[in-house]
Amino acid sequence: MKAIIAKQPGGAEQLQITERPSPIPNGKELLIKVEAVGVNRLDVIKRESNTDHLEQPILGVEVAGVVEKSNPNSNIDKGTRVMGLVSGGAYAEYALIPSDRAMVIPDNLSYEQAAAIPEVFLTAYQTLFWLGNLQEDETVLIHAGGSGVGTAAIQLAKQLKGANVIITAGTTEKLNTAKTLGASYCINYKEQAFDQEVLQATDDRGVDLILDFIGASYWEKNLASLSVDGRWVLIGTLGGSTVEQVSLTELMTKRIQLTGTLLTPRNDQYKAKLATEFIAETSKLFKNNQLKPVIDRVFNFDQMSQAHEYMEENKNIGKIIVKL
Amino acid sequence: MKAIIAKQPGGAEQLQITERPSPIPNGKELLIKVEAVGVNRLDVIKRESNTDHLEQPILGVEVAGVVEKSNPNSNIDKGTRVMGLVSGGAYAEYALIPSDRAMVIPDNLSYEQAAAIPEVFLTAYQTLFWLGNLQEDETVLIHAGGSGVGTAAIQLAKQLKGANVIITAGTTEKLNTAKTLGASYCINYKEQAFDQEVLQATDDRGVDLILDFIGASYWEKNLASLSVDGRWVLIGTLGGSTVEQVSLTELMTKRIQLTGTLLTPRNDQYKAKLATEFIAETSKLFKNNQLKPVIDRVFNFDQMSQAHEYMEENKNIGKIIVKL
Repeated sequence: MKAIIAKQPGGAEQLQITERPSPIPNGKELLIKVEAVGVNRLDVIKRESNTDHLEQPILGVEVAGVVEKSNPNSNIDKGTRVMGLVSGGAYAEYALIPSDRAMVIPDNLSYEQAAAIPEVFLTAYQTLFWLGNLQEDETVLIHAGGSGVGTAAIQLAKQLKGANVIITAGTTEKLNTAKTLGASYCINYKEQAFDQEVLQATDDRGVDLILDFIGASYWEKNLASLSVDGRWVLIGTLGGSTVEQVSLTELMTKRIQLTGTLLTPRNDQYKAKLATEFIAETSKLFKNNQLKPVIDRVFNFDQMSQAHEYMEENKNIGKIIVKL
Repeated sequence: MKAIIAKQPGGAEQLQITERPSPIPNGKELLIKVEAVGVNRLDVIKRESNTDHLEQPILGVEVAGVVEKSNPNSNIDKGTRVMGLVSGGAYAEYALIPSDRAMVIPDNLSYEQAAAIPEVFLTAYQTLFWLGNLQEDETVLIHAGGSGVGTAAIQLAKQLKGANVIITAGTTEKLNTAKTLGASYCINYKEQAFDQEVLQATDDRGVDLILDFIGASYWEKNLASLSVDGRWVLIGTLGGSTVEQVSLTELMTKRIQLTGTLLTPRNDQYKAKLATEFIAETSKLFKNNQLKPVIDRVFNFDQMSQAHEYMEENKNIGKIIVKL
């Protein structure tokens, strides 16, 4: 089968299509004929820093396709359209996925749309509800509202909990997208002090929850934006990872709960439980078009280098997809 | 009635017994004939820093006594022995307590013992279970293991969850007390690097939960002592409140949940719920002597100044009680 590897650690030009044997599923995996894959930052990191480049693993962690071979332990039959996160090997004509991590694709969605769901929607779901414990009608501040996880989080918060969603972003286009997806208050962080805007939008109460992809550079403003008993989920450090002079008194006085997280290193059982709960809670909403995968651009399989370059330009709103 | 106030903001010498009218309960309060009170750091702070000293409020927040007058909305009758936290006014012959915050004293305990329970046991219960989410058989690190909250937390963690309890303290006497109360691993922080000891005691896994009264000076060692997915409840800053440099990456990689808290400013409903759940979960254990109030010394009512001075010496292990 055709598969994409990095010849050696380096730039997008290192990506190349090669021939590899089709993978063989064990009793807990499904073999998928891949129809579309999501391009992720993890793929870029893997491409650049593969510690053993002689091994040249097949890249890619996010996949949508049709089940070519099921197994006796799975209730997903051959021919079912599925999507999900895999531990590498997605950039190929065939890929393996653990049965309990495969999610059935809602009927109305194409493979390209489906490939845009797993990474960002599972991350957003986990951080909003499992870690952030978002409740009905609460207010949530979502930074990087135009990012993949941001666009997913806006929709999930709004559609599943009727939350009041405040976002920050740096371009008019991103602010508009966020608004369309359900954000009720959109702040251009380049032009406005977001903490002051948040306090104004909440009658000085502050927000119940922050999804923070930014880290250090927003530390003080995030603290100021949180309500008493606020929760703060830290999922990225785009604005630096070292905070100077942290006041513990403020964390105590406001009774803040700060939770750090990374999705990828969780164990298989956790990922399976997350996938199962996510699809049960959202499948109908995707079918009703209340939830929508946000796609920026679709590339062909032989344009993977361009797809990576495009990701590295950081201009996309929503996912970058490659179809086979 | 006799009551104790601070003549003006200042040292323990400002405390004096005065005459005040007995308080009159509203429809949601019980009138208690006070038999014993707990001395708390909050009382010292209040004594020193009362912003309006002309008002000279009756000090004291922790009380044990017998119900002198109940109300139609309460199922606690006149003559019942109760204990609990009040919003001032405990240092007196009579005090008021909201009915839903009053806890019936287990039969086997004296008033002096009962007055040693509310503040430290409720704080320990809340931080271990509500905020720290301690589960069966987990490992918890409790700093200041010889303190009031520390000695309560050791017992609660051990008796309610069968937890593996590791503590730190600074004197042999405190280490011994902690051991007697159920700690399985006691670290003298003056002689040992506690993070290394914790890792050794947990086969390098780290602890599931830390109760942290220390703050800044223990920051790095606490981070090193936590397991992946560890919870960290910050309830004091005896070691400083400003951390010079915080690495967010470490919080994310270990997926730490850090929760700041203070008991006192919670709302009445929260305090009532906490008192109700606490007494339901622990009453039998107090009766069995599986849980024991830890008392350092009992003073008489006219020795309140000495009791405050003794607290300010920081030598006590367990509670300082004043009986009427």
